[in-house]
Amino acid sequence: MGAAASGQSSVGEPGTARIAVDLLGGDHAPAVVVDGALRACQADPALHLLLVGPLEAAGEVLGALPPDDRARISTLPIAPGDRVESWVESGVRSAVLAVAQGAADAVLSAGNTGATVTSAALGLGRCPGVRRPPLAAVLPTTAGRLVLLDVGSSIDPDEETVVTHARLGSAYASVVHGVAEPRVGLLTIGTERGKGDRLRRALPALLARADLPSGGRYVGLVEGSDVVTGTVADVVVTDGFTGNVLLKGLETAYAELGPPHRENPPRAALLLGVEGTVVVCHGAASGPDLAAGIAFAAQLHRQAAVAVMAEMIETQRGVP
Amino acid sequence: MGAAASGQSSVGEPGTARIAVDLLGGDHAPAVVVDGALRACQADPALHLLLVGPLEAAGEVLGALPPDDRARISTLPIAPGDRVESWVESGVRSAVLAVAQGAADAVLSAGNTGATVTSAALGLGRCPGVRRPPLAAVLPTTAGRLVLLDVGSSIDPDEETVVTHARLGSAYASVVHGVAEPRVGLLTIGTERGKGDRLRRALPALLARADLPSGGRYVGLVEGSDVVTGTVADVVVTDGFTGNVLLKGLETAYAELGPPHRENPPRAALLLGVEGTVVVCHGAASGPDLAAGIAFAAQLHRQAAVAVMAEMIETQRGVP
Repeated sequence: MGAAASGQSSVGEPGTARIAVDLLGGDHAPAVVVDGALRACQADPALHLLLVGPLEAAGEVLGALPPDDRARISTLPIAPGDRVESWVESGVRSAVLAVAQGAADAVLSAGNTGATVTSAALGLGRCPGVRRPPLAAVLPTTAGRLVLLDVGSSIDPDEETVVTHARLGSAYASVVHGVAEPRVGLLTIGTERGKGDRLRRALPALLARADLPSGGRYVGLVEGSDVVTGTVADVVVTDGFTGNVLLKGLETAYAELGPPHRENPPRAALLLGVEGTVVVCHGAASGPDLAAGIAFAAQLHRQAAVAVMAEMIETQRGVP
Repeated sequence: MGAAASGQSSVGEPGTARIAVDLLGGDHAPAVVVDGALRACQADPALHLLLVGPLEAAGEVLGALPPDDRARISTLPIAPGDRVESWVESGVRSAVLAVAQGAADAVLSAGNTGATVTSAALGLGRCPGVRRPPLAAVLPTTAGRLVLLDVGSSIDPDEETVVTHARLGSAYASVVHGVAEPRVGLLTIGTERGKGDRLRRALPALLARADLPSGGRYVGLVEGSDVVTGTVADVVVTDGFTGNVLLKGLETAYAELGPPHRENPPRAALLLGVEGTVVVCHGAASGPDLAAGIAFAAQLHRQAAVAVMAEMIETQRGVP
């Protein structure tokens, strides 16, 4: 942990999860992040938080917790710099570095997606073969749940990037959702041949011959409706623009109308293809959303999901 | 009407609407189209249908109607050609020509979108300034309803095309929904500056200075969530790929969970910017969906929506 960090956080306790929380990320930071951190602490007694950002905001969390719980909070103060934008982005950079240096087990940020992806790629390193780490979201479906990626990292990906995302998504569905042989679909606007743009016309042949981990298999073209029903695919790959628009539309519809399944996943996305656990919430996330994101990061750390996925993909690639 | 057409359809009766129905269009044609045609006829005694396609399918509609109602059905037979694809697409071409020749007032097809757009542009003509006619869908929102375009015609539009679509969408919201000064938003993945791809970064400046008909005004960037709530925009413009994916996702969510508003618009899109009324249903449309599409085409014809919109846009452009 860097010299600026303070407080005692227990390392290596069974079940303990130490999450570095970016107090500066999000449309309503730090207020809703403070709220989310408090909710998460209250819900999980084995959770430790490293609060990265202004000391006053971290102080609000400490002040609201009973004395016995304060030992679970560490702080990594960041003071405002000259440029507001760079100051805000330094929150996620510092949170990522805390994980890289072993001071935390995972990062939670609701800040700018581009800054988070870049910080994570540089600070933690990308897995072999990963050019642009994708953000993978989980949506409830009438059949259960489904992994949608990318939802905002690669706006205009090339073919190879989407094929890599299919591999990462397949590993995610296997490790985190326990799906035996994940079915992977490509999102497009009609299942007739030749529909969609150049990317969508080139991808089916590449996806059909891609080796997907954990017995994953490409099941063909899917449409927006299939992301709601979940009956044809466990994983749906698309560009980050389309994925982000669809995710925000469906999440809001489910928030208004109730989810299509009793199981309602957290409104948080995992950054795949980096060597560490980085969970991203929407900029507009609420306190409960952020608490769910922190709990999700803790769950992923406890099941060593990122390491297991990386090993699964390396094995599939034939690398010992 | 061409020599191949038969039957008596009344022209110019008050309230009468003559809809040319493409029996060959859609994933489950002609069966569900026959079902939709029957439902539409039963629901609206002033409706006349010109059934375009195989005589056997048209015969099924006639056979299922009481004798008194059969006078409201005309047929335009099409026999299978050598190439299945071209045969199927000849359904919508013939339906469009029937409108161009005055034998019908509007077209309804659930067939291939590209074939429908091309047939309509060639057969009916495009309005001045329209390069690629967009498909405009209406979605229910928590606040009421919203026009989303394009939903499948322009997969990779240039800036000028999207600005034209904003004009057409503004006229649509004014004429069909009675919105006084339509608010037009641009769909993207975050409302911070610089988010999205090249198209989304170039468009805000162009949309801000575009003259939109009926007092329409550009209200800025919107996200997938705003298409569900409907609180910030009456019209949302996007490329046809993103629009199609979002439309199919939300429509399916609303079908599963119930719509967010008591008013539930038909699952059918109007082709804007052509000189005639062309309504498109999804390839996977059900009988009730097709009946709703036919009723929607009849409503648009009865209010002369397409002519009123064209005049509104011409006035705005300063053309007398």
